[in-house]
Amino acid sequence: MPSDSDLALVEDDVPVAGEGQLLLRTVYLSLDPYMRGRMNAVRSYVPFVTIGETMVGGAVSEVVSSDVEGFAAGDLVFGYTGWQTHAISDGKQLRKLDRAAAPISTALGVLGMPGHTAYVGLLDIGRPQAGDTLVVSSACGAVGSAVGQIARIKGCRVVGIAGAPEKCRYAVEELGFDACVSHYEDDLSQRLARACPDGIDIFFDNVGGRVFTAAFEQLNAGARVPVCGMISQYNQTAPPPGPDSLPQVMRAILVKRLTIQGFIIFDHQHRWTAFHEDMSAWIRDGRVKYREDFVDGLENAAAAFRGFFEGRNFGKLIVRVGDDPTA
Amino acid sequence: MPSDSDLALVEDDVPVAGEGQLLLRTVYLSLDPYMRGRMNAVRSYVPFVTIGETMVGGAVSEVVSSDVEGFAAGDLVFGYTGWQTHAISDGKQLRKLDRAAAPISTALGVLGMPGHTAYVGLLDIGRPQAGDTLVVSSACGAVGSAVGQIARIKGCRVVGIAGAPEKCRYAVEELGFDACVSHYEDDLSQRLARACPDGIDIFFDNVGGRVFTAAFEQLNAGARVPVCGMISQYNQTAPPPGPDSLPQVMRAILVKRLTIQGFIIFDHQHRWTAFHEDMSAWIRDGRVKYREDFVDGLENAAAAFRGFFEGRNFGKLIVRVGDDPTA
Repeated sequence: MPSDSDLALVEDDVPVAGEGQLLLRTVYLSLDPYMRGRMNAVRSYVPFVTIGETMVGGAVSEVVSSDVEGFAAGDLVFGYTGWQTHAISDGKQLRKLDRAAAPISTALGVLGMPGHTAYVGLLDIGRPQAGDTLVVSSACGAVGSAVGQIARIKGCRVVGIAGAPEKCRYAVEELGFDACVSHYEDDLSQRLARACPDGIDIFFDNVGGRVFTAAFEQLNAGARVPVCGMISQYNQTAPPPGPDSLPQVMRAILVKRLTIQGFIIFDHQHRWTAFHEDMSAWIRDGRVKYREDFVDGLENAAAAFRGFFEGRNFGKLIVRVGDDPTA
Repeated sequence: MPSDSDLALVEDDVPVAGEGQLLLRTVYLSLDPYMRGRMNAVRSYVPFVTIGETMVGGAVSEVVSSDVEGFAAGDLVFGYTGWQTHAISDGKQLRKLDRAAAPISTALGVLGMPGHTAYVGLLDIGRPQAGDTLVVSSACGAVGSAVGQIARIKGCRVVGIAGAPEKCRYAVEELGFDACVSHYEDDLSQRLARACPDGIDIFFDNVGGRVFTAAFEQLNAGARVPVCGMISQYNQTAPPPGPDSLPQVMRAILVKRLTIQGFIIFDHQHRWTAFHEDMSAWIRDGRVKYREDFVDGLENAAAAFRGFFEGRNFGKLIVRVGDDPTA
């Protein structure tokens, strides 16, 4: 578990933008579970953050000054500028935001990387058919809530897995899920089986561990399992004790002709435009709702980030780093 | 492990075909690893064989008498007629064989279900690209030998995993694999790593267990794992001791964006014609070779079948049940 002493809050002068550069002022910093992987000194799909570096993260920023064509002071942009109040950029990896189209914070959630992840993982890997039963874990999280709502639009029966009872209620009453079961319950498997009387055709997992096992048992022949995350495992430093469940899982993969597929959203940039158009329309129509969980101040980012591992966040977790000029 | 006492050799009168029926005389009985699953009283993708029933199996038979249009005495057919010297059929599930096209025993192997399995699993699930490295276990078996040779045709570097040193030599010298490593060696992982200097893009597994683990460790990002069989696990009655390796495997699936997909050939009948045309051409051209391992007499089928679990068979395992009229 990352502790406060694993991160240092460093105060320094605001950097000065040079020729061909922008100075950005961070408004909203996104917190996402993938960040935990960047804190390990092991090879992953992207380089880890070395000690002394600024922690990585996506953020919405305001352009303070610009020497880059196409950007002007006052523009609002999205970029991976990290856990800091100001950043220097050459503009190449920035995306300009339309403040009239949607609240700018949604560029971190439902209209940003998490929404894109939900869209690609569900539609391209999960391949939902009307009448399928979909189960999604972290049902009220930034990704899970979008997965479930898109699956409803595609005609699936949607069952969430969440922790706190108020999250389960929210998934059903606000997001329109058909059911939601709590992984706080000892009899998660039985509850999930009752909520999925026709078995599970798509299991979109963000959690791993016993949540994975409970849903895995109920998979139908031909089921698809987009592997998006495993928040329950990210702080594990050693394999859990036995017995070894892998042979049983492999046997089920064979006998039930399952497809288990890991994916990383950065491989799927070609789906960005389709995602952004569809999701914007669904939000306008009220078919997709979203919830944001704001935390004030960069100094509280580490504590808020730990909330992922304790199920404290309720919706897309965002740190308000600076004033929102659109608010 | 199935023992002789788990099967009974029952002598009875040759059955009499009625109206609309054929009497078949078994020439060759196919032995295949999937049969082990039919011997367990657990739900699988097909019903298990109940006690007292004839054991299931594909066979090449000669038509003795026919009251079915399209079949005449002397015809040679393939059907799932089981472990017996004679069978009654209504002809609906039979496929007529062309004795001029290929030796009739190949209908059980390279031109039959195992070849079809190799073709679909490799091409449709493995999706080979020229330059990919493919690893296939049971490299000299009916499926594995076809997988490796088709992958060579598609421009892959092909590395086999087999047991006995003469099998490894055969895979390289006769089948044209680039390398073949023995799973009898303690340092299988290291040997496999040396044989796959660019990692593994497709791992076609027939074995499971430590063979799976050794190859899994070397998978590249985006690798595909068609799960075809796990002969090392079929006689297991309890999960192995810990630690539990599943979380580590799931993490690799996520980080490396792997696709693990089980498949059963009976779901892929629409690919039969393409398979049969391509494979027939490859055999004619000498681009695909095959090896058959014959056992004489139905009374020796059980002992021969146990050979799968001990790595005794060398090539497609076939029981010669009756005289081959084409021999």
